[in-house]
Amino acid sequence: MMKTAAEVREACRSGRWTGPTCGLAPDYVQANLAVFPKDWAYDFLLFAQRNPKPVPVLEVGDAGDFRISRIAANADVRTDLPKYRIWKNGILEEEVTDISRYWRDDLVYFLIGCSFSFEEALVDEGLPVRHIEENVNVPMYRTSLMCEGAGKIPDTPMVVSMRPYTPEQAVRAAKITGQMPFVHGAPVHIGNPSEIGITDIAKPDFGDAVTVNPGEIPVFWACGVTPQSAVMEAKPPFMISHAPGHMFVGDKRNDDFRIR
Amino acid sequence: MMKTAAEVREACRSGRWTGPTCGLAPDYVQANLAVFPKDWAYDFLLFAQRNPKPVPVLEVGDAGDFRISRIAANADVRTDLPKYRIWKNGILEEEVTDISRYWRDDLVYFLIGCSFSFEEALVDEGLPVRHIEENVNVPMYRTSLMCEGAGKIPDTPMVVSMRPYTPEQAVRAAKITGQMPFVHGAPVHIGNPSEIGITDIAKPDFGDAVTVNPGEIPVFWACGVTPQSAVMEAKPPFMISHAPGHMFVGDKRNDDFRIR
Repeated sequence: MMKTAAEVREACRSGRWTGPTCGLAPDYVQANLAVFPKDWAYDFLLFAQRNPKPVPVLEVGDAGDFRISRIAANADVRTDLPKYRIWKNGILEEEVTDISRYWRDDLVYFLIGCSFSFEEALVDEGLPVRHIEENVNVPMYRTSLMCEGAGKIPDTPMVVSMRPYTPEQAVRAAKITGQMPFVHGAPVHIGNPSEIGITDIAKPDFGDAVTVNPGEIPVFWACGVTPQSAVMEAKPPFMISHAPGHMFVGDKRNDDFRIR
Repeated sequence: MMKTAAEVREACRSGRWTGPTCGLAPDYVQANLAVFPKDWAYDFLLFAQRNPKPVPVLEVGDAGDFRISRIAANADVRTDLPKYRIWKNGILEEEVTDISRYWRDDLVYFLIGCSFSFEEALVDEGLPVRHIEENVNVPMYRTSLMCEGAGKIPDTPMVVSMRPYTPEQAVRAAKITGQMPFVHGAPVHIGNPSEIGITDIAKPDFGDAVTVNPGEIPVFWACGVTPQSAVMEAKPPFMISHAPGHMFVGDKRNDDFRIR
Protein backbone atom coordinates (compact mmCIF):
# COMPACT_ATOMS: atom_id res chain seq x y z
CA MET A 1 0.00 0.00 0.00
CA MET A 2 1.11 3.54 -0.73
CA LYS A 3 2.01 5.16 2.58
CA THR A 4 3.07 8.69 1.66
CA ALA A 5 1.35 11.42 -0.28
CA ALA A 6 4.33 11.73 -2.63
CA GLU A 7 3.97 8.02 -3.54
CA VAL A 8 0.28 8.46 -4.32
CA ARG A 9 0.94 11.51 -6.50
CA GLU A 10 3.77 9.75 -8.36
CA ALA A 11 1.51 6.73 -9.02
CA CYS A 12 -1.19 9.05 -10.37
CA ARG A 13 1.27 11.03 -12.47
CA SER A 14 2.69 7.91 -14.10
CA GLY A 15 -0.77 6.49 -14.74
CA ARG A 16 -0.24 3.49 -12.43
CA TRP A 17 -3.06 4.59 -10.11
CA THR A 18 -6.45 5.76 -11.43
CA GLY A 19 -8.65 4.59 -8.53
CA PRO A 20 -10.18 6.30 -5.50
CA THR A 21 -7.85 7.69 -2.85
CA CYS A 22 -9.87 6.65 0.21
CA GLY A 23 -7.55 4.80 2.60
CA LEU A 24 -4.37 5.69 0.68
CA ALA A 25 -1.57 7.47 2.58
CA PRO A 26 -3.55 7.82 5.79
CA ASP A 27 -2.62 10.85 7.93
CA TYR A 28 -2.11 13.01 4.83
CA VAL A 29 -4.64 15.69 3.91
CA GLN A 30 -6.85 14.98 0.89
CA ALA A 31 -8.52 17.74 -1.09
CA ASN A 32 -11.37 18.31 -3.51
CA LEU A 33 -10.45 20.06 -6.76
CA ALA A 34 -12.27 22.82 -8.63
CA VAL A 35 -10.69 24.58 -11.63
CA PHE A 36 -12.27 27.67 -13.18
CA PRO A 37 -11.42 30.22 -15.84
CA LYS A 38 -10.11 33.42 -14.20
CA ASP A 39 -13.38 35.30 -14.78
CA TRP A 40 -15.16 32.88 -12.43
CA ALA A 41 -12.44 32.75 -9.78
CA TYR A 42 -13.50 35.79 -7.75
CA ASP A 43 -17.10 34.66 -7.43
CA PHE A 44 -15.98 31.20 -6.34
CA LEU A 45 -13.45 32.51 -3.81
CA LEU A 46 -16.07 34.89 -2.39
CA PHE A 47 -18.64 32.05 -2.25
CA ALA A 48 -16.06 30.11 -0.21
CA GLN A 49 -15.39 33.09 2.09
CA ARG A 50 -19.12 33.38 2.76
CA ASN A 51 -19.61 29.65 3.29
CA PRO A 52 -16.44 28.41 4.97
CA LYS A 53 -18.06 25.30 6.48
CA PRO A 54 -19.03 23.65 3.17
CA VAL A 55 -16.18 25.32 1.19
CA PRO A 56 -12.94 25.42 3.24
CA VAL A 57 -10.30 26.55 0.71
CA LEU A 58 -6.84 25.12 1.37
CA GLU A 59 -4.92 26.48 -1.62
CA VAL A 60 -5.52 28.61 -4.72
CA GLY A 61 -3.17 28.81 -7.70
CA ASP A 62 -2.27 31.88 -9.74
CA ALA A 63 -3.99 32.06 -13.13
CA GLY A 64 -2.33 29.58 -15.48
CA ASP A 65 -0.13 28.07 -12.78
CA PHE A 66 -0.49 24.30 -12.48
CA ARG A 67 2.11 23.86 -9.73
CA ILE A 68 0.87 23.11 -6.23
CA SER A 69 3.31 24.41 -3.66
CA ARG A 70 1.53 25.19 -0.39
CA ILE A 71 -0.18 22.03 0.87
CA ALA A 72 2.28 19.85 -1.07
CA ALA A 73 5.79 20.16 -2.50
CA ASN A 74 6.49 19.66 -6.21
CA ALA A 75 2.98 18.73 -7.21
CA ASP A 76 1.24 19.30 -10.55
CA VAL A 77 -2.51 19.77 -10.56
CA ARG A 78 -2.71 18.53 -14.20
CA THR A 79 -1.42 15.03 -13.49
CA ASP A 80 -1.31 14.28 -9.77
CA LEU A 81 -4.95 13.31 -9.17
CA PRO A 82 -6.13 9.87 -10.23
CA LYS A 83 -9.20 11.02 -12.13
CA TYR A 84 -10.81 14.28 -13.28
CA ARG A 85 -14.11 15.44 -14.70
CA ILE A 86 -14.46 17.97 -17.52
CA TRP A 87 -17.62 20.10 -17.38
CA LYS A 88 -19.06 22.40 -20.04
CA ASN A 89 -22.02 24.68 -19.28
CA GLY A 90 -22.75 22.64 -16.17
CA ILE A 91 -22.81 19.33 -18.06
CA LEU A 92 -20.33 16.51 -17.46
CA GLU A 93 -18.50 15.96 -20.75
CA GLU A 94 -15.76 13.50 -19.95
CA GLU A 95 -13.69 11.70 -17.31
CA VAL A 96 -9.92 11.75 -17.82
CA THR A 97 -6.82 10.79 -15.84
CA ASP A 98 -4.71 13.76 -16.98
CA ILE A 99 -5.83 17.31 -17.76
CA SER A 100 -2.62 18.55 -19.42
CA ARG A 101 -4.29 18.95 -22.79
CA TYR A 102 -7.12 20.98 -21.20
CA TRP A 103 -4.85 23.31 -19.27
CA ARG A 104 -5.02 27.00 -20.25
CA ASP A 105 -3.28 30.19 -19.19
CA ASP A 106 -6.45 31.55 -17.63
CA LEU A 107 -7.29 28.58 -15.41
CA VAL A 108 -7.22 28.88 -11.62
CA TYR A 109 -7.29 25.82 -9.36
CA PHE A 110 -8.89 25.62 -5.91
CA LEU A 111 -8.07 22.82 -3.47
CA ILE A 112 -10.82 22.39 -0.89
CA GLY A 113 -10.76 20.56 2.44
CA CYS A 114 -12.41 17.15 2.69
CA SER A 115 -14.17 15.20 5.43
CA PHE A 116 -11.59 12.39 5.18
CA SER A 117 -9.45 14.69 7.35
CA PHE A 118 -11.88 14.85 10.24
CA GLU A 119 -12.92 11.21 9.91
CA GLU A 120 -9.35 10.22 10.68
CA ALA A 121 -9.51 12.35 13.83
CA LEU A 122 -12.83 10.75 14.85
CA VAL A 123 -11.53 7.21 14.38
CA ASP A 124 -8.30 8.05 16.21
CA GLU A 125 -10.35 9.14 19.20
CA GLY A 126 -12.38 5.95 19.23
CA LEU A 127 -15.48 7.24 17.43
CA PRO A 128 -16.40 4.72 14.74
CA VAL A 129 -17.56 6.08 11.38
CA ARG A 130 -20.57 4.06 10.23
CA HIS A 131 -20.11 4.27 6.44
CA ILE A 132 -16.49 3.13 6.83
CA GLU A 133 -17.65 0.20 8.98
CA GLU A 134 -20.28 -0.68 6.38
CA ASN A 135 -17.85 -0.10 3.52
CA VAL A 136 -20.14 2.24 1.58
CA ASN A 137 -20.03 5.92 0.56
CA VAL A 138 -21.03 8.52 3.17
CA PRO A 139 -24.75 9.47 2.96
CA MET A 140 -25.30 13.06 1.76
CA TYR A 141 -28.49 15.15 1.69
CA ARG A 142 -29.71 18.42 0.23
CA THR A 143 -31.07 20.58 3.05
CA SER A 144 -33.17 23.66 3.67
CA LEU A 145 -30.07 25.38 5.12
CA MET A 146 -29.10 27.95 2.50
CA CYS A 147 -25.62 28.97 1.41
CA GLU A 148 -25.22 32.59 0.44
CA GLY A 149 -24.36 33.12 -3.21
CA ALA A 150 -21.65 35.35 -4.65
CA GLY A 151 -21.81 37.03 -8.04
CA LYS A 152 -22.69 34.47 -10.72
CA ILE A 153 -23.07 31.71 -8.09
CA PRO A 154 -26.64 31.69 -6.72
CA ASP A 155 -27.88 31.06 -3.19
CA THR A 156 -27.90 27.25 -2.96
CA PRO A 157 -29.04 24.61 -0.50
CA MET A 158 -26.24 23.31 1.68
CA VAL A 159 -25.43 19.64 1.14
CA VAL A 160 -24.59 17.80 4.36
CA SER A 161 -23.01 14.46 5.17
CA MET A 162 -24.39 12.32 8.01
CA ARG A 163 -22.79 10.03 10.59
CA PRO A 164 -24.94 8.42 13.31
CA TYR A 165 -23.76 8.57 16.93
CA THR A 166 -25.13 8.12 20.43
CA PRO A 167 -25.78 11.50 22.09
CA GLU A 168 -22.63 11.08 24.17
CA GLN A 169 -20.56 10.30 21.07
CA ALA A 170 -22.21 13.17 19.21
CA VAL A 171 -20.97 15.64 21.80
CA ARG A 172 -17.42 14.31 21.48
CA ALA A 173 -17.63 14.30 17.66
CA ALA A 174 -18.86 17.92 17.71
CA LYS A 175 -15.95 18.94 19.92
CA ILE A 176 -13.30 17.17 17.82
CA THR A 177 -14.56 18.44 14.46
CA GLY A 178 -15.12 21.90 15.95
CA GLN A 179 -11.35 21.99 16.37
CA MET A 180 -10.97 21.52 12.61
CA PRO A 181 -12.59 24.64 11.12
CA PHE A 182 -10.49 24.35 7.95
CA VAL A 183 -11.96 20.94 7.09
CA HIS A 184 -15.73 21.58 7.54
CA GLY A 185 -15.63 22.19 11.31
CA ALA A 186 -18.38 21.43 13.84
CA PRO A 187 -21.70 19.81 12.83
CA VAL A 188 -24.32 22.12 11.33
CA HIS A 189 -27.15 20.09 12.86
CA ILE A 190 -27.71 17.26 15.35
CA GLY A 191 -30.91 15.23 15.62
CA ASN A 192 -34.25 15.59 13.83
CA PRO A 193 -33.55 15.52 10.06
CA SER A 194 -36.84 17.23 9.19
CA GLU A 195 -35.67 20.42 10.92
CA ILE A 196 -33.19 20.92 8.08
CA GLY A 197 -35.55 19.76 5.35
CA ILE A 198 -34.53 16.11 5.10
CA THR A 199 -37.68 14.02 4.66
CA ASP A 200 -36.25 10.51 4.66
CA ILE A 201 -32.92 9.70 6.30
CA ALA A 202 -32.96 6.31 4.56
CA LYS A 203 -32.89 7.99 1.14
CA PRO A 204 -29.79 10.16 0.78
CA ASP A 205 -29.53 12.45 -2.27
CA PHE A 206 -25.94 11.34 -2.85
CA GLY A 207 -23.90 8.40 -1.56
CA ASP A 208 -25.39 5.44 0.32
CA ALA A 209 -27.76 4.96 3.24
CA VAL A 210 -26.21 3.67 6.47
CA THR A 211 -27.68 1.94 9.52
CA VAL A 212 -28.86 4.22 12.33
CA ASN A 213 -29.08 2.00 15.42
CA PRO A 214 -31.60 2.42 18.25
CA GLY A 215 -30.23 5.02 20.66
CA GLU A 216 -28.34 6.82 17.92
CA ILE A 217 -29.09 10.23 16.44
CA PRO A 218 -27.97 11.53 13.06
CA VAL A 219 -25.19 14.13 13.13
CA PHE A 220 -24.85 16.39 10.09
CA TRP A 221 -21.76 18.16 8.77
CA ALA A 222 -21.41 20.68 5.93
CA CYS A 223 -20.26 18.76 2.87
CA GLY A 224 -17.81 19.52 0.08
CA VAL A 225 -20.41 18.49 -2.49
CA THR A 226 -22.12 21.85 -1.80
CA PRO A 227 -19.88 23.97 -4.06
CA GLN A 228 -20.16 21.45 -6.90
CA SER A 229 -23.91 21.58 -6.59
CA ALA A 230 -23.87 25.42 -6.51
CA VAL A 231 -21.54 25.66 -9.47
CA MET A 232 -23.50 23.18 -11.55
CA GLU A 233 -26.49 25.42 -11.06
CA ALA A 234 -24.47 28.46 -12.17
CA LYS A 235 -23.33 26.62 -15.33
CA PRO A 236 -19.88 28.05 -15.99
CA PRO A 237 -18.87 27.58 -19.66
CA PHE A 238 -15.89 25.46 -18.61
CA MET A 239 -14.75 23.84 -15.38
CA ILE A 240 -12.73 20.87 -14.17
CA SER A 241 -13.26 18.91 -10.95
CA HIS A 242 -11.83 15.75 -9.43
CA ALA A 243 -13.91 12.60 -10.01
CA PRO A 244 -15.82 11.76 -6.79
CA GLY A 245 -13.52 10.03 -4.30
CA HIS A 246 -10.48 10.60 -6.53
CA MET A 247 -8.84 13.35 -4.50
CA PHE A 248 -5.60 15.29 -4.44
CA VAL A 249 -3.30 13.99 -1.68
CA GLY A 250 -1.09 16.69 -0.12
CA ASP A 251 2.00 16.58 2.08
CA LYS A 252 0.36 18.31 5.03
CA ARG A 253 -1.00 16.04 7.72
CA ASN A 254 -4.66 16.00 8.73
CA ASP A 255 -3.49 16.88 12.20
CA ASP A 256 -1.97 20.14 10.86
CA PHE A 257 -5.56 21.34 10.39
CA ARG A 258 -6.57 20.73 13.99
CA ILE A 259 -6.65 23.47 16.63
CA ARG A 260 -6.43 22.34 20.27
CA MET B 1 -20.39 54.84 27.90
CA MET B 2 -21.77 53.13 24.83
CA LYS B 3 -22.37 49.50 25.71
CA THR B 4 -23.71 47.95 22.51
CA ALA B 5 -22.37 47.87 18.99
CA ALA B 6 -25.63 49.35 17.65
CA GLU B 7 -25.18 52.37 19.95
CA VAL B 8 -21.65 52.94 18.69
CA ARG B 9 -22.70 52.70 15.04
CA GLU B 10 -25.64 55.06 15.60
CA ALA B 11 -23.32 57.59 17.27
CA CYS B 12 -20.89 57.38 14.33
CA ARG B 13 -23.69 57.64 11.78
CA SER B 14 -25.13 60.77 13.37
CA GLY B 15 -21.68 62.34 13.68
CA ARG B 16 -21.79 62.37 17.49
CA TRP B 17 -18.79 60.05 17.75
CA THR B 18 -15.64 60.54 15.64
CA GLY B 19 -13.05 59.15 18.07
CA PRO B 20 -11.26 55.80 18.44
CA THR B 21 -13.34 52.72 19.26
CA CYS B 22 -10.93 51.11 21.73
CA GLY B 23 -12.86 50.27 24.90
CA LEU B 24 -16.28 51.02 23.38
CA ALA B 25 -18.93 48.30 23.48
CA PRO B 26 -16.64 45.67 24.97
CA ASP B 27 -17.44 42.05 24.03
CA TYR B 28 -18.44 43.10 20.50
CA VAL B 29 -16.17 42.30 17.56
CA GLN B 30 -14.32 45.22 16.00
CA ALA B 31 -13.01 45.13 12.45
CA ASN B 32 -10.50 46.82 10.18
CA LEU B 33 -11.90 48.20 6.91
CA ALA B 34 -10.45 48.06 3.40
CA VAL B 35 -12.46 49.19 0.37
CA PHE B 36 -11.24 48.56 -3.18
CA PRO B 37 -12.52 49.00 -6.71
CA LYS B 38 -13.79 45.65 -8.03
CA ASP B 39 -10.73 45.11 -10.23
CA TRP B 40 -8.56 44.90 -7.08
CA ALA B 41 -10.94 42.76 -5.06
CA TYR B 42 -9.83 39.33 -6.29
CA ASP B 43 -6.16 40.00 -5.62
CA PHE B 44 -6.95 41.24 -2.12
CA LEU B 45 -9.24 38.31 -1.31
CA LEU B 46 -6.61 35.87 -2.59
CA PHE B 47 -3.89 37.66 -0.58
CA ALA B 48 -6.11 37.15 2.48
CA GLN B 49 -6.67 33.46 1.66
CA ARG B 50 -2.91 32.95 1.41
CA ASN B 51 -2.15 34.90 4.58
CA PRO B 52 -5.04 34.19 6.96
CA LYS B 53 -3.09 35.06 10.11
CA PRO B 54 -2.42 38.72 9.25
CA VAL B 55 -5.56 39.05 7.07
CA PRO B 56 -8.55 37.22 8.61
CA VAL B 57 -11.51 38.33 6.47
CA LEU B 58 -14.81 38.51 8.39
CA GLU B 59 -17.13 39.89 5.71
CA VAL B 60 -17.01 41.00 2.08
CA GLY B 61 -19.69 43.06 0.33
CA ASP B 62 -20.96 42.69 -3.19
CA ALA B 63 -19.67 45.32 -5.62
CA GLY B 64 -21.44 48.60 -4.95
CA ASP B 65 -23.24 47.32 -1.86
CA PHE B 66 -22.66 49.45 1.22
CA ARG B 67 -24.89 47.43 3.57
CA ILE B 68 -23.21 45.24 6.16
CA SER B 69 -25.40 42.28 7.01
CA ARG B 70 -23.31 39.36 8.21
CA ILE B 71 -21.29 40.44 11.24
CA ALA B 72 -23.85 43.17 12.03
CA ALA B 73 -27.50 43.89 11.31
CA ASN B 74 -28.62 47.06 9.49
CA ALA B 75 -25.20 48.61 9.20
CA ASP B 76 -23.89 50.96 6.51
CA VAL B 77 -20.19 50.89 5.70
CA ARG B 78 -20.35 54.50 4.40
CA THR B 79 -21.37 56.07 7.71
CA ASP B 80 -20.99 53.63 10.60
CA LEU B 81 -17.28 53.97 11.31
CA PRO B 82 -16.05 57.04 13.21
CA LYS B 83 -13.27 57.96 10.78
CA TYR B 84 -11.98 56.92 7.36
CA ARG B 85 -8.93 57.49 5.21
CA ILE B 86 -9.05 58.12 1.46
CA TRP B 87 -6.01 56.86 -0.46
CA LYS B 88 -5.01 57.58 -4.07
CA ASN B 89 -2.11 55.73 -5.71
CA GLY B 90 -0.92 54.62 -2.29
CA ILE B 91 -0.91 58.16 -0.89
CA LEU B 92 -3.14 59.33 1.97
CA GLU B 93 -5.30 62.13 0.57
CA GLU B 94 -7.80 62.90 3.30
CA GLU B 95 -9.45 61.84 6.56
CA VAL B 96 -13.25 61.98 6.64
CA THR B 97 -16.05 60.86 8.96
CA ASP B 98 -18.43 59.78 6.18
CA ILE B 99 -17.61 58.22 2.79
CA SER B 100 -21.04 58.57 1.19
CA ARG B 101 -19.79 61.04 -1.41
CA TYR B 102 -16.91 58.71 -2.32
CA TRP B 103 -19.06 55.61 -2.70
CA ARG B 104 -19.19 54.08 -6.18
CA ASP B 105 -20.97 51.17 -7.82
CA ASP B 106 -17.72 49.28 -8.29
CA LEU B 107 -16.48 49.46 -4.69
CA VAL B 108 -16.12 46.31 -2.57
CA TYR B 109 -15.63 46.46 1.19
CA PHE B 110 -13.64 43.99 3.29
CA LEU B 111 -14.00 43.79 7.07
CA ILE B 112 -10.96 42.20 8.67
CA GLY B 113 -10.52 40.74 12.15
CA CYS B 114 -8.68 42.78 14.78
CA SER B 115 -6.52 41.95 17.79
CA PHE B 116 -8.97 43.75 20.12
CA SER B 117 -10.96 40.50 19.91
CA PHE B 118 -8.23 38.28 21.29
CA GLU B 119 -7.03 40.87 23.79
CA GLU B 120 -10.43 40.69 25.46
CA ALA B 121 -10.02 36.91 25.72
CA LEU B 122 -6.53 37.29 27.20
CA VAL B 123 -7.67 39.80 29.82
CA ASP B 124 -10.72 37.65 30.65
CA GLU B 125 -8.40 34.76 31.42
CA GLY B 126 -6.20 36.83 33.69
CA LEU B 127 -3.41 37.61 31.24
CA PRO B 128 -2.66 41.33 31.44
CA VAL B 129 -1.97 43.17 28.19
CA ARG B 130 0.98 45.50 28.71
CA HIS B 131 0.09 48.30 26.28
CA ILE B 132 -3.39 48.50 27.81
CA GLU B 133 -1.82 48.70 31.29
CA GLU B 134 0.54 51.44 30.09
CA ASN B 135 -2.23 53.16 28.16
CA VAL B 136 -0.32 53.35 24.87
CA ASN B 137 -0.75 51.85 21.39
CA VAL B 138 0.41 48.25 20.84
CA PRO B 139 4.01 48.03 19.54
CA MET B 140 4.24 46.76 15.95
CA TYR B 141 7.27 45.70 13.92
CA ARG B 142 8.12 44.87 10.32
CA THR B 143 9.68 41.39 10.22
CA SER B 144 11.66 39.11 7.95
CA LEU B 145 8.66 36.73 7.86
CA MET B 146 7.26 37.12 4.34
CA CYS B 147 3.63 37.13 3.27
CA GLU B 148 2.92 35.58 -0.09
CA GLY B 149 1.63 38.06 -2.67
CA ALA B 150 -1.36 37.64 -4.98
CA GLY B 151 -1.67 39.26 -8.39
CA LYS B 152 -0.97 42.99 -8.14
CA ILE B 153 -0.16 42.68 -4.42
CA PRO B 154 3.53 41.83 -3.97
CA ASP B 155 5.21 39.55 -1.44
CA THR B 156 5.47 41.75 1.67
CA PRO B 157 7.04 41.54 5.12
CA MET B 158 4.56 40.50 7.79
CA VAL B 159 3.92 43.15 10.41
CA VAL B 160 3.56 41.75 13.92
CA SER B 161 2.27 43.10 17.22
CA MET B 162 4.08 42.29 20.47
CA ARG B 163 2.91 41.61 24.02
CA PRO B 164 5.44 40.61 26.72
CA TYR B 165 4.68 37.63 28.95
CA THR B 166 6.45 35.25 31.30
CA PRO B 167 7.11 31.91 29.60
CA GLU B 168 4.26 30.35 31.57
CA GLN B 169 1.88 33.14 30.51
CA ALA B 170 3.14 32.91 26.93
CA VAL B 171 2.09 29.27 26.74
CA ARG B 172 -1.41 30.15 27.97
CA ALA B 173 -1.64 33.15 25.63
CA ALA B 174 -0.62 30.93 22.71
CA LYS B 175 -3.29 28.40 23.59
CA ILE B 176 -6.06 31.01 23.98
CA THR B 177 -5.27 32.90 20.77
CA GLY B 178 -4.73 29.61 18.91
CA GLN B 179 -8.43 29.02 19.55
CA MET B 180 -9.21 32.24 17.64
CA PRO B 181 -7.93 31.53 14.10
CA PHE B 182 -10.36 34.07 12.62
CA VAL B 183 -8.82 36.96 14.58
CA HIS B 184 -5.06 36.40 13.92
CA GLY B 185 -4.76 33.09 15.79
CA ALA B 186 -1.71 31.73 17.63
CA PRO B 187 1.54 33.72 17.89
CA VAL B 188 3.86 33.59 14.86
CA HIS B 189 6.96 33.82 17.08
CA ILE B 190 7.95 33.66 20.74
CA GLY B 191 11.25 34.89 22.12
CA ASN B 192 14.35 36.25 20.37
CA PRO B 193 13.23 39.20 18.19
CA SER B 194 16.30 39.00 15.93
CA GLU B 195 15.16 35.60 14.64
CA ILE B 196 12.35 37.37 12.79
CA GLY B 197 14.43 40.35 11.74
CA ILE B 198 13.60 42.76 14.56
CA THR B 199 16.80 44.56 15.57
CA ASP B 200 15.57 46.68 18.50
CA ILE B 201 12.49 45.72 20.49
CA ALA B 202 12.51 49.20 22.07
CA LYS B 203 11.96 50.81 18.65
CA PRO B 204 8.73 49.59 17.09
CA ASP B 205 8.01 50.54 13.47
CA PHE B 206 4.43 51.47 14.39
CA GLY B 207 2.72 52.18 17.71
CA ASP B 208 4.57 52.63 20.99
CA ALA B 209 7.29 50.78 22.90
CA VAL B 210 6.17 48.98 26.07
CA THR B 211 8.08 47.75 29.13
CA VAL B 212 9.45 44.20 28.95
CA ASN B 213 10.15 43.19 32.56
CA PRO B 214 12.95 40.85 33.68
CA GLY B 215 11.73 37.28 33.29
CA GLU B 216 9.43 38.19 30.40
CA ILE B 217 9.82 37.27 26.75
CA PRO B 218 8.25 39.05 23.79
CA VAL B 219 5.36 37.21 22.13
CA PHE B 220 4.55 38.16 18.52
CA TRP B 221 1.24 37.94 16.68
CA ALA B 222 0.42 38.55 13.00
CA CYS B 223 -0.96 42.07 12.74
CA GLY B 224 -3.75 43.63 10.72
CA VAL B 225 -1.42 46.43 9.63
CA THR B 226 0.17 43.90 7.25
CA PRO B 227 -2.44 44.20 4.46
CA GLN B 228 -2.34 48.00 4.64
CA SER B 229 1.41 47.91 4.29
CA ALA B 230 1.16 45.43 1.38
CA VAL B 231 -1.51 47.45 -0.37
CA MET B 232 0.32 50.75 0.06
CA GLU B 233 3.23 49.13 -1.73
CA ALA B 234 0.93 47.97 -4.56
CA LYS B 235 -0.46 51.53 -4.95
CA PRO B 236 -4.05 50.95 -6.07
CA PRO B 237 -5.43 54.04 -7.84
CA PHE B 238 -8.16 54.38 -5.20
CA MET B 239 -8.82 52.82 -1.83
CA ILE B 240 -10.53 53.61 1.46
CA SER B 241 -9.52 52.36 4.91
CA HIS B 242 -10.60 53.07 8.48
CA ALA B 243 -8.43 55.60 10.33
CA PRO B 244 -6.11 53.72 12.75
CA GLY B 245 -8.01 52.73 15.90
CA HIS B 246 -11.33 53.94 14.43
CA MET B 247 -12.87 50.55 13.72
CA PHE B 248 -16.18 49.11 12.62
CA VAL B 249 -18.07 47.63 15.58
CA GLY B 250 -20.21 44.60 14.70
CA ASP B 251 -23.02 42.78 16.49
CA LYS B 252 -21.14 39.49 16.78
CA ARG B 253 -19.35 38.90 20.05
CA ASN B 254 -15.62 38.34 20.28
CA ASP B 255 -16.41 35.01 21.86
CA ASP B 256 -18.25 33.94 18.67
CA PHE B 257 -14.82 33.76 17.03
CA ARG B 258 -13.37 31.39 19.62
CA ILE B 259 -13.14 27.64 19.11
CA ARG B 260 -12.87 25.51 22.22
